[in-house]
Amino acid sequence: MGDPVGIGPEIVAKALCEPCVSRLCRPIVYGNAVRLIKGARCAGAKIDFVAVPSVNEARRSHADVAVIDPGRSNDAAGLDWARPTAACGLAMFAYLNAAIDDAMAGKVDAIATGPINKAALHMAGIAYAGHTEILAHRTQTRNYAMMLAGDRLKVVLATIHVPLARVPEILATSTILKVIELTGHDLKTRFGISDARIAVAGLNPHAGENGLFGDEEEKIIRPAIDQAISRGIDASGPHPPDTVFFSASRGAYDAVIAMYHDQGLGPFKMIHFNDGVNTTLGLPIVRTSVDHGTAYDIAGTGRASAESMVAAIAMAAKQAEWLRRHRSYIAESNSLRS
Amino acid sequence: MGDPVGIGPEIVAKALCEPCVSRLCRPIVYGNAVRLIKGARCAGAKIDFVAVPSVNEARRSHADVAVIDPGRSNDAAGLDWARPTAACGLAMFAYLNAAIDDAMAGKVDAIATGPINKAALHMAGIAYAGHTEILAHRTQTRNYAMMLAGDRLKVVLATIHVPLARVPEILATSTILKVIELTGHDLKTRFGISDARIAVAGLNPHAGENGLFGDEEEKIIRPAIDQAISRGIDASGPHPPDTVFFSASRGAYDAVIAMYHDQGLGPFKMIHFNDGVNTTLGLPIVRTSVDHGTAYDIAGTGRASAESMVAAIAMAAKQAEWLRRHRSYIAESNSLRS
Repeated sequence: MGDPVGIGPEIVAKALCEPCVSRLCRPIVYGNAVRLIKGARCAGAKIDFVAVPSVNEARRSHADVAVIDPGRSNDAAGLDWARPTAACGLAMFAYLNAAIDDAMAGKVDAIATGPINKAALHMAGIAYAGHTEILAHRTQTRNYAMMLAGDRLKVVLATIHVPLARVPEILATSTILKVIELTGHDLKTRFGISDARIAVAGLNPHAGENGLFGDEEEKIIRPAIDQAISRGIDASGPHPPDTVFFSASRGAYDAVIAMYHDQGLGPFKMIHFNDGVNTTLGLPIVRTSVDHGTAYDIAGTGRASAESMVAAIAMAAKQAEWLRRHRSYIAESNSLRS
Repeated sequence: MGDPVGIGPEIVAKALCEPCVSRLCRPIVYGNAVRLIKGARCAGAKIDFVAVPSVNEARRSHADVAVIDPGRSNDAAGLDWARPTAACGLAMFAYLNAAIDDAMAGKVDAIATGPINKAALHMAGIAYAGHTEILAHRTQTRNYAMMLAGDRLKVVLATIHVPLARVPEILATSTILKVIELTGHDLKTRFGISDARIAVAGLNPHAGENGLFGDEEEKIIRPAIDQAISRGIDASGPHPPDTVFFSASRGAYDAVIAMYHDQGLGPFKMIHFNDGVNTTLGLPIVRTSVDHGTAYDIAGTGRASAESMVAAIAMAAKQAEWLRRHRSYIAESNSLRS
């Protein structure tokens, strides 16, 4: 559900009314039933929520959407629209942790996260930079990467939230190689794309134009591509950053590795502004996320669009299905071999 | 015509067969008639070219397209597809200079440039970085800027062909202010857009997120925006670089000032890959350009698309028309005042 005082409750309520969501999965909300009912009311969403103590009980219920509130037993006292507090930070942290634990235990197949407020987390003394870092830490994952995924374009970031001036100095061959490998692996296991064609963007204009506009392409990026190829990955580049995303969107590549935040997100948002999904590669569990914030300015008005939430849930369900097939295939191969 | 041994001749021949081109302007080619006829033949373009000694003679001819070859009197000896030489570099330089001189003298209304090869220019001892620098020097223009223009999005670059690592250090408030001013001025005089709404992108992810990911927004970019506003320009920002181009493409702004090459060109090419036009702001003459290179790999095969050339010619003609209207309006206002 994400932040209980942001647009999370209303977009979850709206999203769970969508027929495509109920076709793809059986939803369980880690959040607060009182806030969700308020969210549904303000959004005019005809849906019922029922508080359950744990995911085991949730599985028995069918008529309503089950809500698990690990921290507060569905008490909503002190939670008001657009009023972040330490209690609010603790609550969103508890929802996420409970969802992660149930996913790690195989009790839920995937997590789609709503927006959280880092300031509220910090008020509660929780010092993570964001969702993804919490997920990585709790699942003991060292190598992970952020992918922005849509039907026409998938972009994975080699660096994320750093000042542009620091990008050239922190960009490393080992990081780029890991991101290429994670991308190849997860496209196979979670998107059903075998032998993915992975394009790697350059860092500089025209990918450096033979060293005329920078040498990171030859010194840092090309060695990573060469190593990836030697490990059997269909990687190519460094490609000119102003055209590779267009080429990929026309079908030339299955994914593009962007060297920094806006190199990838600028092109991506031109064609997937409303239906793009943020997903974390490298985790042992499936995790997708809305690609927007808590939007306090409109929280509680029912005006927030649930499109990104719907897309995140749908993609989580599809990834879980591919992962299930992949694991059955591996298990079958192993049993045939033994 | 650009490089006589690249795809220039064939795309010019193809483009001039398009009815939309003949509706918008009377074309004169600064190039080589023999190469153009070869280009027309390989492209299957039904068009005749006739060599004339100067633009004055060109104006009298109607049936065929007039070609002015200032350097070589339409001799094509030694010019072969995909074989750049010093002679070739001299030729393309002479075409461009003759066109600039005639435009400065008011004998032609606008220039649309074909692709040139910098290596051939350098073989001829001509040490310009490219087309735009030649135009700026010959027209004695100090302040100019590159705009990529399409129907849905117009992007102007504050820095262009520099390594990404150098962008933060060379970005200056005075440069950004000049680019904002040039954009506002030329959108009025050459695109007919009065009081243009100009968005300025930030440099860092999320436009720095209040200094969390860099301080160039507050130190360098915002002062330029504030000064532009105080001079009566409808400028705004610094905007998050990953969403401002999408917002502009949906009509929120008339143009976006990008801080560096790929920040602007990546998003631009997602929606204007085939019909985008490169145009130079700040020159005393109208100049547009194709946004691709000489494509030696397919030169002489007739396969090159003329779409960008057609778009460049059409935009040059439209800019010339707006500039004519603007100058009449100014002249009229002045005569009314006196």
